[in-house]
Amino acid sequence: MTTRQLTEQIQQKKSFLCIGLDVDLTKIPSHLLATEDPIFEFNKAIIDATHDLCVSYKPNTAFYEAYGIKGWQSLEKTIQYINDKYPEIFTIADAKRGDIGNTSTRYAKAFFEDLNFDSVTVAPYMGKDSVEPFLAFENKHTIMLALTSNEGAFDFQTLEANGQEVYKTVLETSKNWKNSQNLMYVVGATKAEYFSEIRKIVPESFLLVPGVGAQGGSLAEVCKYGMNPNVGLLINSSRGIIYASNGTDFAQKAREEALKLQVEMEEILNV
Amino acid sequence: MTTRQLTEQIQQKKSFLCIGLDVDLTKIPSHLLATEDPIFEFNKAIIDATHDLCVSYKPNTAFYEAYGIKGWQSLEKTIQYINDKYPEIFTIADAKRGDIGNTSTRYAKAFFEDLNFDSVTVAPYMGKDSVEPFLAFENKHTIMLALTSNEGAFDFQTLEANGQEVYKTVLETSKNWKNSQNLMYVVGATKAEYFSEIRKIVPESFLLVPGVGAQGGSLAEVCKYGMNPNVGLLINSSRGIIYASNGTDFAQKAREEALKLQVEMEEILNV
Repeated sequence: MTTRQLTEQIQQKKSFLCIGLDVDLTKIPSHLLATEDPIFEFNKAIIDATHDLCVSYKPNTAFYEAYGIKGWQSLEKTIQYINDKYPEIFTIADAKRGDIGNTSTRYAKAFFEDLNFDSVTVAPYMGKDSVEPFLAFENKHTIMLALTSNEGAFDFQTLEANGQEVYKTVLETSKNWKNSQNLMYVVGATKAEYFSEIRKIVPESFLLVPGVGAQGGSLAEVCKYGMNPNVGLLINSSRGIIYASNGTDFAQKAREEALKLQVEMEEILNV
Repeated sequence: MTTRQLTEQIQQKKSFLCIGLDVDLTKIPSHLLATEDPIFEFNKAIIDATHDLCVSYKPNTAFYEAYGIKGWQSLEKTIQYINDKYPEIFTIADAKRGDIGNTSTRYAKAFFEDLNFDSVTVAPYMGKDSVEPFLAFENKHTIMLALTSNEGAFDFQTLEANGQEVYKTVLETSKNWKNSQNLMYVVGATKAEYFSEIRKIVPESFLLVPGVGAQGGSLAEVCKYGMNPNVGLLINSSRGIIYASNGTDFAQKAREEALKLQVEMEEILNV
């Protein structure tokens, strides 16, 4: 999917919501546990109930790896289901990968080709030759961690080097990498005031924004400072939507929570 | 496994060699491709031929993920084979993971509990709360990227912040994290002169050192600056050993290459 198609989807659906599919067997409705693949059944129900309210789904690979081979099978079935039934959805493998050169190419192939995700998240610590292998894939997107929404973001990301914080150097430097047009960035919502500075460095890039809701970030604030003429934002919500209920009504309740965010987004887009 | 047991193994075997099991189906002997699980058959032969010459094996997860479910099965079989047959071996899942809090716990469980690796590599960018979940596992080890052996290491790791390079702050800061005694660090061999500075910050920690051989680092130089009274080094070699031959003699040739390094290590240990 191209970023232009993503923007068109946002305008059509009046939503820039991304739903995080972080499935924990201890949190899903107990009636699903008797099915052959509870993780997939859960995802399928959530996806069918919310696909018109969001433009993106983001499974975090940790939740699938934690269940070994069975978990990977659930991940495969989930991405295949989305690609088959809702091809207009922008899919994100939240994997935070990164390794040396050829090894990164392996990860890129795993997520872009074998699983056919539209995008994957990566970590920047190993620099250019750990990220460029991902950028080489056409119409695929690499979402690099810049400023994350957790406490530990202040350990290294905000260290001041050469007169600016490390995460700003990460943003600036990455613009010079080959095929940098395929980059997007993770920027946590818990620090909305940082968005205006970030937009000076990457005015056109899409930003994937975790931390709205559960982690305390404000949607209105993020949009005020972070939105660009093509919207340029994907706001992620995971727990607040998918675990809205753990009864048999879980999919309906998830829809209600997603709808609240979509309505708020529509109002912002209409201003 | 405890670090003390690891040091004992090093002294017994007179080796601090780690062999990287980065299996690429296009590089392994063609006669193995007809077997049901070529990756596992390859690993098994390499392990049987070299286990007395090394103290550690390190599969890089990218090479397994690239083959989807089948790749994960090969990884499972490989780690199980090592744990069953050679329990004295220190196993490393080279996964370079890292995520927010609870999500990191998922990764830690996947590698430490389900797969039963002794250690896993992690990326530091997200800071304390992304790494501490790994450190909470007793007698398991978390090997954090500090200064890597690739070109991109100079993009962000060596930025100067507060009067020192970022990677030194990573080392220093991590010493204050809970259960930091379970930390080891990745330090590339291509920059041997950096080891003396690093040893001032982490005199006692084990360092996992890629980049000897294929990537140009010198074993003697690394040991000169990096060794501590408990040795404190694991020197990794992957391609130079496992792809020494792609004929039917591949395991024997791998043994010969491993032996060369072991002999060199024995000489260094005897000084």
